[in-house]
Amino acid sequence: MSDDTPEPFTEQDYADRMARAAQDAAAAGLAGLLVAPGPDLVWLCGYRPTAITERLTLLVLTPSAEPRLLVPALELPDAQAAPGAGAVRMSDWRDGQDPYAAATGLMLPNGRYGVSDSTWALHLLGLQETLPLTTYRALTTALPMLRGVKDAHEVARLAAAGAAADRTYEEILSVPFTGRRETEVAADLARLLREHGHSQVDFTVVGSGPNGANPHHEAGERVIRPGDMVVLDFGGLKDGYGSDTTRTVHVGEPTEEERRVHGIVRAAQQAAFEAVAPGVPCQEIDRVARKVITDAGYGEYFIHRTGHGIGVTTHEPPYMVEGETQPLVPGMCFSIEPGIYLPGRFGVRIEDIVTCTETGGRRLNDTAHEMAVVE
Amino acid sequence: MSDDTPEPFTEQDYADRMARAAQDAAAAGLAGLLVAPGPDLVWLCGYRPTAITERLTLLVLTPSAEPRLLVPALELPDAQAAPGAGAVRMSDWRDGQDPYAAATGLMLPNGRYGVSDSTWALHLLGLQETLPLTTYRALTTALPMLRGVKDAHEVARLAAAGAAADRTYEEILSVPFTGRRETEVAADLARLLREHGHSQVDFTVVGSGPNGANPHHEAGERVIRPGDMVVLDFGGLKDGYGSDTTRTVHVGEPTEEERRVHGIVRAAQQAAFEAVAPGVPCQEIDRVARKVITDAGYGEYFIHRTGHGIGVTTHEPPYMVEGETQPLVPGMCFSIEPGIYLPGRFGVRIEDIVTCTETGGRRLNDTAHEMAVVE
Repeated sequence: MSDDTPEPFTEQDYADRMARAAQDAAAAGLAGLLVAPGPDLVWLCGYRPTAITERLTLLVLTPSAEPRLLVPALELPDAQAAPGAGAVRMSDWRDGQDPYAAATGLMLPNGRYGVSDSTWALHLLGLQETLPLTTYRALTTALPMLRGVKDAHEVARLAAAGAAADRTYEEILSVPFTGRRETEVAADLARLLREHGHSQVDFTVVGSGPNGANPHHEAGERVIRPGDMVVLDFGGLKDGYGSDTTRTVHVGEPTEEERRVHGIVRAAQQAAFEAVAPGVPCQEIDRVARKVITDAGYGEYFIHRTGHGIGVTTHEPPYMVEGETQPLVPGMCFSIEPGIYLPGRFGVRIEDIVTCTETGGRRLNDTAHEMAVVE
Repeated sequence: MSDDTPEPFTEQDYADRMARAAQDAAAAGLAGLLVAPGPDLVWLCGYRPTAITERLTLLVLTPSAEPRLLVPALELPDAQAAPGAGAVRMSDWRDGQDPYAAATGLMLPNGRYGVSDSTWALHLLGLQETLPLTTYRALTTALPMLRGVKDAHEVARLAAAGAAADRTYEEILSVPFTGRRETEVAADLARLLREHGHSQVDFTVVGSGPNGANPHHEAGERVIRPGDMVVLDFGGLKDGYGSDTTRTVHVGEPTEEERRVHGIVRAAQQAAFEAVAPGVPCQEIDRVARKVITDAGYGEYFIHRTGHGIGVTTHEPPYMVEGETQPLVPGMCFSIEPGIYLPGRFGVRIEDIVTCTETGGRRLNDTAHEMAVVE
């Protein structure tokens, strides 16, 4: 167990978030926001249903009325126990009733609404059919920065999650790699994340040798051997906020080529970090990292964007990707994670969570970028 | 570990499912089916991405063309490793490209498509904006029975999952209840489910005393006491198919009222089970259970439907609910789980998974319905 549990967010914190969201919606020309279970609902009112199912749960935020939360009758007690419950007016529907009639009763018949990204198509179609004159935009499209700028309490939580991931990395360097399956090292990562206070482990990538060249490889049955590069990418939630860090280690002494490729990725990560400042477009962070790798001749092997935001999820706006012109704002928190993936051979990725401050970037991961040698 | 791992489904099994789905879509007047990650995708082609994210993955099934699977470039190796991968033609898109342009390139510009229920609104809106003349129906609305009738191999997997849940129930009766928190007994249930071969635990409800009166209470910090009724509702996935069973036990000797309420629920469950036969509408199963409870004077305390289908998820069509006129078909598998919930006092629920056969219902859970006394 961790001994640094932060003060919980208060009912007033949630009320403030919901009020700001409704104002932002109005400023974006929307009649309101519709939020189904998922990270937006957790952030706005603290409610996380036990499961996300075909039964409609929907938070309706409008600038002119109090927040309304519609829930299935049998989940009402759970919803009432949420930390932000006192800041919303709840109503419920029972099996056999039409939940879309209940939800649209809280909406304008011809309004334009933002709807949370992960709302099920089943529910969106139910709303569209019940009120055919309403129109919808995805919340991330309409208000991409709703959760994008973190307040000081949120940055502190992300920093604590990052520190826990750093301790995990330091300790994983001492476990044996040679002769063990990737899944065994992954289990060690998960155990360490939990020991350092994570309540949820989202991913524990152990990509050894050629598996490291698949950036979304998780961990498999491959037995790690001397001479392997090993990509370690791990994270989850601690006190409701995310961690996500990557280091690439080597079993025994690396070759000259392995050192060179690792050095290029390291330089790309550093250059992108140094480019972080208020007002810099997100795509510039991607361009800076990509230029280092492209100039070194490996551009075609960097096959993903440079980073993503992090908060109550480990994957959210803002995205550090070509085409994203959103300027960085102090309080934004995101990954910088360039990589090079040589198919059939090995991969290298280095990732830190970084927050934008008034004076530039601040890393929320502090472990060394040097390629560690493990046994 | 379990020693009864079934033969994996073959590429031909997945090809057959996709062909039937495309035919069913055509018969329902649809141009095709669009399936995002989730249980439908797993069932159709065996592919379960590591995470369901904002990056579009979409299976496009049309009657006149081969199945197509669009995936993010960095997830292509994972998709290619899926057991049904050989039965689909894959294409990929890279960060920075427009995935909706890629997806709609596989669609008719004015077609009517079925879309998997849990597809993110973000993605449905992206398709709707790219091809404004297309229309959509939720897959469960358009083809509610696509996965509703299980073949013999699937029923065998569900029976094996049910047997594992039954062993879990038998063993939980021997653990101490008095003086332990609900969460501790829940952890025992999860451990036992895994010991009996479950790869995933979806829920471990331990509703003691008044917590049992909240049908979706999971497990909390309440310490179980002598005299408590305790609702135990647990399940998950074994070899890809679900278990879900509920028994209500008592710590020490129950009161006369507790016995009476338990007996009413037991009679309702038995009556509904006996009503199972080919051709009987799903809502009739709900009506039969509800009548027993209503006639006994507790109708207002049975606040949910009587059951739900089960397969590659623990919650799917067909639903045993008023208004569902779908007739039962041999091979359908679903829960029968009436309950009575007395607010602030206690709850009782009894649940078995049942499959419809040519000659009536067959239970996939076989443990005793009597109210067990625990210590």
